[in-house]
This record gives sequence, structure tokens and C-alpha cells, in this order.
Amino acid sequence: MRSDPDRLSFEITARDGDARAGVIRTAHGEIKTPAFIPLATKGTVRGLESREVEELGYELVLGNTYHLFVSPGAERIAAAGGLHGFMGWGRSIITDSGGFQVFSLAHGGVADEVKGSNRPGGGRGAVLEIAEQGVRFRSYRDGAERFLSPEVSMQVQSALGSDIALAFDECTPFHASRDYTARSTARTHRWLERCLDWHEREGPAGQAVFGIVQGGVHEDLRRESAQAVSAAGVDGIAIGGTLGRDKEQMRGVLGLTAPLLPLDAPRHLLGIGEVDDMLAAIAIGIDVFDCAVPTRLARHGVALVPDPAARFRLDLRKAGFEGDRHAIAEGCPCPACRRHDRDYLSYLCRAEELTAVRLLALHNLTYMERLSAAARTAIAAGNLGAYAEAIAGGEPPWAAAT
Amino acid sequence: MRSDPDRLSFEITARDGDARAGVIRTAHGEIKTPAFIPLATKGTVRGLESREVEELGYELVLGNTYHLFVSPGAERIAAAGGLHGFMGWGRSIITDSGGFQVFSLAHGGVADEVKGSNRPGGGRGAVLEIAEQGVRFRSYRDGAERFLSPEVSMQVQSALGSDIALAFDECTPFHASRDYTARSTARTHRWLERCLDWHEREGPAGQAVFGIVQGGVHEDLRRESAQAVSAAGVDGIAIGGTLGRDKEQMRGVLGLTAPLLPLDAPRHLLGIGEVDDMLAAIAIGIDVFDCAVPTRLARHGVALVPDPAARFRLDLRKAGFEGDRHAIAEGCPCPACRRHDRDYLSYLCRAEELTAVRLLALHNLTYMERLSAAARTAIAAGNLGAYAEAIAGGEPPWAAAT
Repeated sequence: MRSDPDRLSFEITARDGDARAGVIRTAHGEIKTPAFIPLATKGTVRGLESREVEELGYELVLGNTYHLFVSPGAERIAAAGGLHGFMGWGRSIITDSGGFQVFSLAHGGVADEVKGSNRPGGGRGAVLEIAEQGVRFRSYRDGAERFLSPEVSMQVQSALGSDIALAFDECTPFHASRDYTARSTARTHRWLERCLDWHEREGPAGQAVFGIVQGGVHEDLRRESAQAVSAAGVDGIAIGGTLGRDKEQMRGVLGLTAPLLPLDAPRHLLGIGEVDDMLAAIAIGIDVFDCAVPTRLARHGVALVPDPAARFRLDLRKAGFEGDRHAIAEGCPCPACRRHDRDYLSYLCRAEELTAVRLLALHNLTYMERLSAAARTAIAAGNLGAYAEAIAGGEPPWAAAT
Repeated sequence: MRSDPDRLSFEITARDGDARAGVIRTAHGEIKTPAFIPLATKGTVRGLESREVEELGYELVLGNTYHLFVSPGAERIAAAGGLHGFMGWGRSIITDSGGFQVFSLAHGGVADEVKGSNRPGGGRGAVLEIAEQGVRFRSYRDGAERFLSPEVSMQVQSALGSDIALAFDECTPFHASRDYTARSTARTHRWLERCLDWHEREGPAGQAVFGIVQGGVHEDLRRESAQAVSAAGVDGIAIGGTLGRDKEQMRGVLGLTAPLLPLDAPRHLLGIGEVDDMLAAIAIGIDVFDCAVPTRLARHGVALVPDPAARFRLDLRKAGFEGDRHAIAEGCPCPACRRHDRDYLSYLCRAEELTAVRLLALHNLTYMERLSAAARTAIAAGNLGAYAEAIAGGEPPWAAAT
């Protein structure tokens, strides 16, 4: 591990079994962990002002290197004072490497693919070449040929000025063979070295770099990858790639990966943010989570609720909410729940009013923030198990925390 | 005029030439005039929470009887405690009668048509019959046959529980012949009587009713209509229908109509809300304005700015804002201007991010609120003329007010 508090420090303040509560410190402040991270994919948490994301209590957002590289471009963002200045966000930012998006194009898949759906890949023509040097692809915006490599990704993330950069990796999908996954994972490790070499020479002094553990669902490959990434001299470790076909396999792969990681580094689980998955991952020692689900659900009229049998979801676009005077979730402190009932919110969702997207985004992000905050409290009190059981039993995070 | 302070009162607090500043009082509070009114067409100001519309300083919003009648229906809104309860808005509400929308279907036109574009009408098949009794039309949602009449409109507006209901009228378009306009205007007067009769018997005690002056661009018809509506016993008077083919004709028609109205009643100019039009209308004694333009512009990436040569518009979807570090409008107190520059906002608009719609809606509504507030200040100080000149000279409302 690198260890330079000018870039990043991580202090574990409490433990409960394998779970940890702590504080990550970056050049832009503190992030209390475990923490959920909202996506600011294209330089905004969709539909919300940066000011509001702060008011929700978030201390870290995730910007997307691939999208921002394609538009508006790294130079324009650098000229605005980096992504912080560009989007008017004064707290910490982590940027992904672009690898996930580029390889999603190549493998014909998106998030579902990585998470285990067994569709064959084969490319959509947008990726022209995957080679040791890097990846050539066509911009989805204008068809122009673009190139991403470990060095280019680091260069872009430097220009974005994020507090935490992620190394450029190949995110192997579930349908990849063991042999492909092994070769890809080894290349990801070589790419990590190139990222760190470039960053050592040219990266901004205040920017931390996280490596990404790959290896698919294969125990030996995950072990090799965890060792390689831990040994590489990174500031923190992210877990990427497919974690299996279902929640059971995902927890198995996570359960064998987490103990292989150094105890003193922050651990980021990429792309996972379902309520039950997050609590399970916190229990085995994951610190940080990013996921598109809460904001994507909001755009589709779905609110998070304390209902495990319904996968914690309430689909307000369905019929049947006429006259329902209940809040989305009783006791929720968000603006949607404080002022509006399901009758009105369901009407707005079905009428496809923008106001619905906004109110549900505020609700879902409040839910995830409260879920994380209550997990921190529970770990400090040594009763994470009871907290997780309360959530699994249908308690809302704000009630389960007390 | 009716005059029942339990329904509505109007107090004129200052005069400056023909212009007036005053206070309308309804069952839900005060509305300082001159006032711009945001549209909450379908039960929400698009993209904004009711709480935010309050915070912008607005005291009155306009709900749309036609849209709310078609969906979700008056019963559902009544069951939620009327439109106030349904949308969580504690201040005053005015509802239009549905006439404008129904006749837009019939005449093949929308707002542009009414405002003078000379396309022939002829119906889109959505209106089945216009008769003395009322209008039969097909719902745009499910094709079901629906019927609106003076009585039905009043009944729906009663169920919505608005503070101010508008009488059911035909909004005559510019392309209508003088003969058609004369017959239509006479029918509008008969419909007003039926509205008031129904409301007298069955309307809610606290609801005021405004009549609508029609008559197209014809001086004699406007005169007749102003007299008929004034004599009918209404709580306030709206000016509707086409005002001509251009701004000059509009101001001519308004200039001859306004002096025909009783001095002690509030005057609402329907559907007008361009910056220059609003100031011209305030000068001749109009008190209240509603208009879709500020929020519609926001959805299309256009911000209001103190630039008369550009019709007070800045199109942020255009190229050329890269690196532009200026706020949309320097000194503007809205969240978009306080925190973001044109570079970022233009990027968001071109990327079609929801956040752009929201930020521009907040900006444009802040602009209109400040324009109105400064007009009130200017009238009280007796210098409305200087204020209008400053705005016409490119001063922003917040600077011109001092």
C-alpha cells in the first residue's frame, strides 16, 4: 500500500466482526464509512443540484471518466478547475477509469451482463480493438475513433482532478471463460502497474489511486488478483468484475475476496447498491459502494421502501395507489415523504412529470444515506447483526438505527 | 362586481399612472400584485416541488381544469382535499376553465394561434361538437368521449377547490372571422351567466369567480365584452382570446380594453408573460399574468437574461459557451447563478440532463418573480416609467429595482 496522508488517509474508528466503520480523508474532506456513493456520471447527479446532494449528507460522488472524456472532454473540465469546479461540488470525488464502459461495449453487455446474466457477448462494433496497449473504440456521440489506455485514463482523471482515481481495468463479464478471465485479469494487473507508473510521474500530488481486484467467479484468480493489487502500492482497493449469477454466488465470491485484502486500506465494491447486498457486504468489511440503482429506479417511478419481500421496492407507476394517503415510507425525512402521499406521487409518476423523478431521487438517496449512516452507528455500537436483521425484517433504516 | 371578502378582496395600495400595485386576498392568503403566476398545469410546476415554488416567493399558481379533469379526475383531487391538498401547496390557486384547451383542439391551434399566427384551423377531430350547451371532445389519453360546459367546468373547479375559478369561455383565435368572433363572444357571455348561476347555487363559499373578456381584435366587440363581463357580478376580470398578430396590435387591443374595466377589480391577462409585454401591460393597469413561457423555455435550454435585443433570451443549447465563466445573469439570486457558470449550464443543456431543466426553471421563475417584485416597488415609488426604461435598456430586474 502507498501511504501518504496528503493524498488520502483511512482511519478505522470501530469494528464489529469483520465490519468496520471509519473515515476516509481526501484533499476535499472526510467521508464517513460505510458510505453509499451517488453517481454523478456526466457531471451531475441526475436531476439534483450539487448543493442538494450535499444537503442529503453525501460526502463523495462518482464521476464517469468514459462519459466525461467523450463529452465535454477533459480539457474543458480542467479549464473549469477540474470536476469539482465544473459541477460546483466542494466535497470529494472518485472517478472510475472508463474500463467498465469500454468493455461493456466490447462484451455486448451492460451492468446486468457483469452481474451474471448469461447472454453471449461479441461486441456491438463500437470497440475496434482490445490490445495490450489499450482499447480503440468509436464515440457513441459522433462516431469518431477514440483510444483509452492505462495512461490515457490516468491522464483524463488527472485533468478531472478527482480525489480518488481508479486504475484502468477490464471488467470481465459472467459469460467470459475461465481462460479469458485469467488472461484478462493478468493484463489488468499489468495495466495497474502502468497506471501507477504514469501517476507517480505525472499525476496530481493530491490524488489517490485505487486498484481493482478482478478474477471473475474463480477463487484462485480472485486470490491472485487480491495479492497482486495489494502488493502494487495503491491507496485503496476496489472489487470489480462479475461476482456471479445470483446473490448467493456474489456473496460467496465477495466472502472469499474480502479476507484477502489488507485490513488498513479502504475497500470499494463497484456497482453494488441493493439494500440487502450492501448490508451483506458491510458485514464482511466493505467500506464504500457506488450504484446507479437508486437514481435509476427514481427515473422509472420506483421508490425504496422497508419491504424486503418486494426487494425494498415500491413501483409507483402501477395502478392501485388512488386515495393512498400514506407517505412512501412513514418517518422518512425526505421532501417527498414529508409533504406528499402515494396518491399524488403515483399520479406524478404515471403522468411522467419531471417532478416525480426529482422527488423519488431525493427519497431514494435519502434512503441509501440513512441506511449507511445507521450501519455506521450500528458498527460503533457493536450491533450490526441486529441492525441487519431489523432491516431484513422490514424496519426502515431511521427506525432500525435507534 | 360581486364583493365578498370571504371569497376575495382586492386592495389597491399604490398607483402610478394607470398602473396599480395591490394585494389580492383569498382564503389561502395574500397575493401582492402585479404578480406573475407560474403554471402548475397538471398539479405541479414542472420539475419543482411545491415547497420550492413557495421559496421562490410565489403566492399563486395556475392549475389546468382540462388536464386535471382528464387525469387524474376531479373526484380523486377532491378526495385529497382539493388541489391544495393534492399537490401540497398551501397558498392560493387559480384554475382556468378548460375552455382554452378545448378550443385549441377545435381550432387546430395552440397558444401561437391565439396570439396571431394565421394558420387556418378546422379541428383535429378531437372536438366532436361545439354547441350552445357545451363542447363534446375526445380525451387525448384514452379516446373516451368527454363533455365540458359552463356547469361542468364550474363543477370541476369546485372539486379542485381553487381560490379563483375562471368562467368557461371560447378563446377565439386570430384567424376567426369578425362574424364568428361576435357570435362566439356573445355565447361566452351567456356561458358566464350559466357559470355564475351554477356557482351561486352550488359553488364553494370561499371560491371567487373571474369572468373573461373576449372579442378578438375588434374594438367594438371588446367594448361590449368588457361591459357584459363587468356587469355580470364577477370577483375579477380576465382578458382572453387573441390580442392580435404582433406586439403592436396586442398592445393596441389591450390599451383599448383595460380602460373599459372597473377600477376596483383585479385584472388577469391570460397567457401573456414575455418580459416586455408584461411591463407594457402593467403600465396600463393589468395586475396578474400567467404564462407557460418561462418554464417552457427552461425545458428547451433557454434562460431569461437582461438582453432586450435578444428578446431577453439566452439559448444555452447553442455552441460557444465553452469556457464562459459568467453566470447566466450576474447578480441573479437563483441557485443556477449563485453556483454555476454558463460553461457548465450549457454543457448540461446540450447533454439533455434533467438538472439543466431544473436549474433553468429556478432561474427563469426567479427572474419573473424579481421582475414583478421590482415593478411593485417601482409603482409604490411612482417611478414605473423609469423602471420599464431600465429594463428596456438592459438592466436586470434586481438592479433596476434599486
